[in-house]
Amino acid sequence: MRDLTIDTLNPAFLKVEYAVRGELAIKAETLRDQLKKPGHGLPFDKVISSNIGNPQQKGLDQPPITFTRQVAALMEWPALADLAPDAFPKDVIARAKELRDEIGSIGAYSHSQGVPFIRKSVAKFIQDRDGFPSDPNLIFLTGGASAGVSLMISMLISSPTSGILIPIPQYPLYTATLAQNSGVGIPYYLDESSGWSTSVASIEAAIEKSRKDGIVPKALVIINPGNPTGALLDEATQTALVKLCEEHSLVILADEVYQVNLHQRQTHPFTSFKKVVRQTQSPVPLVSFHSISKGVSGECGRRGGYFEVTNLSKEVVALIYKMVSVGLCPALQGQIGVDSMVRPPKEGEESYPLWKKETDTIHQALASRTKIMAERLNALPGVSCVDSPGALYLFPQIKLSNKAIEAAKEAGKEPDVFYALGLLDETGICVVAGSGFGQKEGEWHYRLTCLCPGVEEYVGKLEKFHQGWVEKYGKE
Amino acid sequence: MRDLTIDTLNPAFLKVEYAVRGELAIKAETLRDQLKKPGHGLPFDKVISSNIGNPQQKGLDQPPITFTRQVAALMEWPALADLAPDAFPKDVIARAKELRDEIGSIGAYSHSQGVPFIRKSVAKFIQDRDGFPSDPNLIFLTGGASAGVSLMISMLISSPTSGILIPIPQYPLYTATLAQNSGVGIPYYLDESSGWSTSVASIEAAIEKSRKDGIVPKALVIINPGNPTGALLDEATQTALVKLCEEHSLVILADEVYQVNLHQRQTHPFTSFKKVVRQTQSPVPLVSFHSISKGVSGECGRRGGYFEVTNLSKEVVALIYKMVSVGLCPALQGQIGVDSMVRPPKEGEESYPLWKKETDTIHQALASRTKIMAERLNALPGVSCVDSPGALYLFPQIKLSNKAIEAAKEAGKEPDVFYALGLLDETGICVVAGSGFGQKEGEWHYRLTCLCPGVEEYVGKLEKFHQGWVEKYGKE
Repeated sequence: MRDLTIDTLNPAFLKVEYAVRGELAIKAETLRDQLKKPGHGLPFDKVISSNIGNPQQKGLDQPPITFTRQVAALMEWPALADLAPDAFPKDVIARAKELRDEIGSIGAYSHSQGVPFIRKSVAKFIQDRDGFPSDPNLIFLTGGASAGVSLMISMLISSPTSGILIPIPQYPLYTATLAQNSGVGIPYYLDESSGWSTSVASIEAAIEKSRKDGIVPKALVIINPGNPTGALLDEATQTALVKLCEEHSLVILADEVYQVNLHQRQTHPFTSFKKVVRQTQSPVPLVSFHSISKGVSGECGRRGGYFEVTNLSKEVVALIYKMVSVGLCPALQGQIGVDSMVRPPKEGEESYPLWKKETDTIHQALASRTKIMAERLNALPGVSCVDSPGALYLFPQIKLSNKAIEAAKEAGKEPDVFYALGLLDETGICVVAGSGFGQKEGEWHYRLTCLCPGVEEYVGKLEKFHQGWVEKYGKE
Repeated sequence: MRDLTIDTLNPAFLKVEYAVRGELAIKAETLRDQLKKPGHGLPFDKVISSNIGNPQQKGLDQPPITFTRQVAALMEWPALADLAPDAFPKDVIARAKELRDEIGSIGAYSHSQGVPFIRKSVAKFIQDRDGFPSDPNLIFLTGGASAGVSLMISMLISSPTSGILIPIPQYPLYTATLAQNSGVGIPYYLDESSGWSTSVASIEAAIEKSRKDGIVPKALVIINPGNPTGALLDEATQTALVKLCEEHSLVILADEVYQVNLHQRQTHPFTSFKKVVRQTQSPVPLVSFHSISKGVSGECGRRGGYFEVTNLSKEVVALIYKMVSVGLCPALQGQIGVDSMVRPPKEGEESYPLWKKETDTIHQALASRTKIMAERLNALPGVSCVDSPGALYLFPQIKLSNKAIEAAKEAGKEPDVFYALGLLDETGICVVAGSGFGQKEGEWHYRLTCLCPGVEEYVGKLEKFHQGWVEKYGKE
């Protein structure tokens, strides 16, 4: 028989790249294994995975919200409410009973679009957030935001000339999904010099150029707050973007998974695209994504999220429903996680004080770490870093000398990958090189999460490595 | 702006069909809502969803395995082990602690391929089952078997002439995924007259025909035990099929999710394709799928499963890893469900007696319902039904008279859909028409699950409806 080789498989798969779990992350795993061996010979005693926004991972250990986990435990084994009634606050027992009455066993498939009762909770959350109505029938619960993004992109790509506008730098899920579906990514560049701002003119230019190249732009991806940039859009820009999409018949794909990760709320608040579309009474089709993996919930492993569709025809909504029905339903514990996120304990309820304390702690720690890290990174020679007002990341720019670029070339690596590999080898800190997100020609960055506790020790390691690098390769 | 219409979207999506959650299932939901209204005017007081193998759904209420849920609850909120130590058996507390030490928080993303420790448990389960080694690095945990099947089919379809051999009747996930990926389904027919057996000659004929049509067959799908047929392959046939795939350079996709749903173990045992490939020392590439949704676990809503790859090159395995990494990881509660399935309590452990009692009850109830239903259906005029030795379904053939076929035509429905809609309207029982699975031209079937408790009342309804149908439309 002939061997099954990768050349005989879907050629689109070969083009997929996903740096967040790529070379650096794989090497970090190898080092973590090596650390377990006595006399491992490594210059550090732990690997810190700053490559991925995964707050509850070992070593970072952001504690889960107790309320969320208590409800989840009671849904797993409802008998606990009788066997250990004193272990649970009364509002938790009531909440689990309410969910249980609606859902039945969490071991059963739910409605493919998600439990109707939970979709109602989501609609109410959106309505309270935006001041505009939301329809549970237009909400799809998903296994994390990624599953929804992937579905929508695969639906929008109708031919190899279909294009989707993506910000550069971007979260590589977008380029990966486009590659997988043989669509074209149309890059538009964010402006680092003004805090990674989004310019309508640069998007228009990108649309024009793509049309000349025979590409049909179908949608605009906006990540707000930004990933990896942490930037926040203001309402005026959002309104202009909505108008632009109207003019060019583009669907807006609004990735809003970091909507509560706000470190400078007074100056940089979050406004949803749903609100902007409604308040401008725009007919522009919009798909908005949210997730329980980020925010203060940080429940990545639960795989829960939702998307809401606005201004889509009944036929298109039915098509989406048909496609999700083939996958049966999102995981029930993810769906319940969404319910806990959109219906947290209210003031006056037994669980409220603890919930408030836990979420305040997470917000404050993230804001403070982000600020300290940005300041200290900015103080390093050849490093400049926008002080992110949102999300979980910093995306510092690093100037690399010709000597460093030459050394990278010799090692067969992109210069920023070479830098990040050096950092990993010396400190055990795993970041993602900027080339994984996209950046302007000749510029170099890396993304790191602001999730690591013990920020002093952590930043100290980054500083020490960078100083050693500059000594070895020169400043620029 | 131009409207976003379905004609502007991925044309492959329009061709996808998935009858298990199609017209009949949607109508059943509407009826269920109607029942909640006072004076609903329907001739039944409950809707019975026999369209989908979903044992724990409301109305069927197959109880979950207590051990599985106790472990899951402790993973959600580990503090329970101290707060309510008496509520849990000691082996459950030990198991949860062991998993917790390995995994950390279930709110963190795991390795994209699944928690390494759980993959080791799966490998041991496979080794104990087959008597041949299994490698944890070749096991991928998934969100149910469907996610894995969908990934493998999308990987194997490298051009619009790529074909995959699928049994007819089949589980419609296969045709749906092929349609979505613009691949070609190459049908091979199972022989109803000999208990839905699989014939190597008929597969060879299908390969030959497809080649003449310019199609390149890439893989053979085998569902064993069968869905919707419940048939089991014997080792001699499996060996011949492996040889056939070797000759024609086909990948075997072995859907083995019903491997423990065996109602006639003495005469119809289960043998995995992994075992057959190993004992024949065949180099044929094989992907074997398993799930926690079926079996005695019935944990559909948890979304857990795995696939094991055999005889794939390192490059192909790396490609699969890259693709699953874009989706980050399968839901942790699904992964833990896999662990509980492959490592149930052992004799002598505190949880064993209850686990044994619960699983025996499920096995016996399913076997007994399947037998009674097959007997009673066979006694109806114009109905013949293979007494399934496996899986969760029966797939009776119904002879329909010309008068009935005419009436269906007038209603704009396939004749078997027309029958199934009549059954739903009159009894509240929702089944799936045979046309959703594929059947020979001019034959009609439906699939129903054997999960409903109160088999007497249930079969009574089926009989009464069929007798009324025969009175109205004649026997054949």
